[in-house]
Amino acid sequence: MERLPGFRDFYPEPLPHQDVWSADARQHIFDQWRTTARRYGFREYDGPPLEPLELFTTKSGEEIVGQLFDFEDKGKRHIALRPEMTPTLARMVAAHERNYKKPIKWFAIPQLFRYEKQQKGRLREHFQFNADLIGETDPAADAELIALLIDTLRGFGLTAEDFVIRLSSRNAWQDFFKHGGGDRAHEYEFFQIIDKLERTPPEEAEKRLSAMGFTLAGVTAFIQSGQPSAELECILQNLAARGLKDFVKIDYQVIRGLAYYTGVVFEAFDRKGEFRAIAGGGRYNNLVKLISGGKVDLPALGFGMGDVVLLELLKARGLLPKFDAPTDVYVLIEDEALRAISLKLVHDLRGAGYAVEYSLTPAKPEKQFKRAQELKATHTARLENDAYVRIRNSKSRDEIVTGLEGAANHLG
Amino acid sequence: MERLPGFRDFYPEPLPHQDVWSADARQHIFDQWRTTARRYGFREYDGPPLEPLELFTTKSGEEIVGQLFDFEDKGKRHIALRPEMTPTLARMVAAHERNYKKPIKWFAIPQLFRYEKQQKGRLREHFQFNADLIGETDPAADAELIALLIDTLRGFGLTAEDFVIRLSSRNAWQDFFKHGGGDRAHEYEFFQIIDKLERTPPEEAEKRLSAMGFTLAGVTAFIQSGQPSAELECILQNLAARGLKDFVKIDYQVIRGLAYYTGVVFEAFDRKGEFRAIAGGGRYNNLVKLISGGKVDLPALGFGMGDVVLLELLKARGLLPKFDAPTDVYVLIEDEALRAISLKLVHDLRGAGYAVEYSLTPAKPEKQFKRAQELKATHTARLENDAYVRIRNSKSRDEIVTGLEGAANHLG
Repeated sequence: MERLPGFRDFYPEPLPHQDVWSADARQHIFDQWRTTARRYGFREYDGPPLEPLELFTTKSGEEIVGQLFDFEDKGKRHIALRPEMTPTLARMVAAHERNYKKPIKWFAIPQLFRYEKQQKGRLREHFQFNADLIGETDPAADAELIALLIDTLRGFGLTAEDFVIRLSSRNAWQDFFKHGGGDRAHEYEFFQIIDKLERTPPEEAEKRLSAMGFTLAGVTAFIQSGQPSAELECILQNLAARGLKDFVKIDYQVIRGLAYYTGVVFEAFDRKGEFRAIAGGGRYNNLVKLISGGKVDLPALGFGMGDVVLLELLKARGLLPKFDAPTDVYVLIEDEALRAISLKLVHDLRGAGYAVEYSLTPAKPEKQFKRAQELKATHTARLENDAYVRIRNSKSRDEIVTGLEGAANHLG
Repeated sequence: MERLPGFRDFYPEPLPHQDVWSADARQHIFDQWRTTARRYGFREYDGPPLEPLELFTTKSGEEIVGQLFDFEDKGKRHIALRPEMTPTLARMVAAHERNYKKPIKWFAIPQLFRYEKQQKGRLREHFQFNADLIGETDPAADAELIALLIDTLRGFGLTAEDFVIRLSSRNAWQDFFKHGGGDRAHEYEFFQIIDKLERTPPEEAEKRLSAMGFTLAGVTAFIQSGQPSAELECILQNLAARGLKDFVKIDYQVIRGLAYYTGVVFEAFDRKGEFRAIAGGGRYNNLVKLISGGKVDLPALGFGMGDVVLLELLKARGLLPKFDAPTDVYVLIEDEALRAISLKLVHDLRGAGYAVEYSLTPAKPEKQFKRAQELKATHTARLENDAYVRIRNSKSRDEIVTGLEGAANHLG
């Protein structure tokens, strides 16, 4: 029986097949995400993987339904597997924001689902690190969040030569649009043209822009100027104070497709341009109000970083550690008369915090020793008799004989 | 907008409302599960939360569909949210077992889903620690797995006075059934009667048993004998060798409802009998063969431990720690001229591994200090000028003035 197309099985390493994913690498990524978020004072939350469909259509319009795993449950509710975390976050914050000091700094590592047309290697689920900062309009909040994004990637060993944050702002584009005489009603349509500019033939872009009273040359000149707005200048200076100047550049090409962004937007890319965006985010000052039906009005911003592109990048840059089952001690049972006491030793060592393995059933000493080597056990332990144990450091080959009780003290 | 009934929102503590769950307690539980599993040499895996419906009906029959979140996707596939992990594990092991040494010792922490009739407080999802041992028939494997279950619960601070493993075996019941002249074709029906015995009126139980040629008195006598079979005696001795004798007792009342168990079965209960089972498991030697369509035949056993009953028990026994956001340093910015250098300090301390907070925007010194206290920051740090910083231990009130570069060395 096969798993569903677009879904992943995660196996312990070494991987048995190229078609499966590493559970160890996944955990390594999750650990690093959590570690950096906590250093920045972000706290973890989570919501249900299933939500009422309405939560997503309220935010993104009916067109999103075509890309969702949505269905009617046995209670006739129209529900969907979450395609993104932000609507759930907005719902949760709106429900209980009064109990939390502002700014609220929260993160989550949800699994997200999209029913995209199946293409080779195209996934229908991924995990995403979501970090959001709620209740602060000052650009200092944007800088804090972008610094978290940068340090998260640095935590994996990536440097300013590996990736860059392309920083932009819808406010800057709004000004450009307004000063150019654009009609407010077509503003979002204009943003959509900018968003797709890199992938649109110049004649077509020219045609669409001129229909709104703009020229491709004018738009291109604005992008190439790279002149930071006052708001973006604040963020750049803040990041420079932290020593993170080299990780960020103004790039008005970035505008983000989603309708709900209201200010600063940004994306993280590998410098060589080999991969899709590593992460993306921005301000969404109106979303909490929208989701709460007007009851709660809080400015907010956040980013999402998926596990798939990140993993590809880390692999390509040789930054994934080798994952072994960390076995601290392999207990050799060469005399079955000593099995019961050996089990006690196994149990004591585990109780002291060590990862311990042994042969469940009688086996030849050579076979046990070979297994210890395969597991790269840092120590072996073998009972001399019912009171003493011989502990051997596999690397230094140092041996020591000690009483059973104190065995745990002779490791490490 | 509300979340779906039977689903949970997880918030950072202190909890804003009695109707929501603690993300911190959840993480505490997950961490403890992982820690103990790794000490026992178990390695993590995961599969998709969605699987073909057939995977679950193959194992459990069509009747399970009534309790599932199942639906037809846009590709007309009949799929379901996983109600348990074992079929996925069996599928994954069958696909790639040749690449792993036996016994395979794996664990997972999946979220599982059941569409049960909605009752007050009844959940439709939970998280479950699954540990399985595959490829070994010897009762030593059963003992190893049960020891893991015991030590997992002990890791939370629970003792032999808090919980007990009720150990039983379908083999023992099979012998009883066969020696009593039972008809093989009705064996599973007989097991079902035993499984429900505690909740069945005696007259009804008597009637059903006598239809199969047994008496309630005979069955009760067998249960009350508590005489361990040879297989169970092995397990008891193995656990006794580890010093875990007090955590387990023979209880033939336990037989587990599911059809696929083939040998030893067990459940963990709180001694006071206040809660539902904390965990349950057993041998399922035929399942891998069944799921793989006969291609792979491996003996196996495993258990599942849900997060909900465990959390209730830990709360009731006062074994949940108090969860705070662990803030190591709060950086006070009392002179805005020093903000840029303060940001550098914030960044350096975070880079050194500390959780650091500060006020994103200008704020009165008293307000900043109050926030540091609310966050229970273990240290505060305040720049004296652009080269020196004053670090204060919040508890001892010791202060030290040090150069900016070495600040991280004066913490901890």
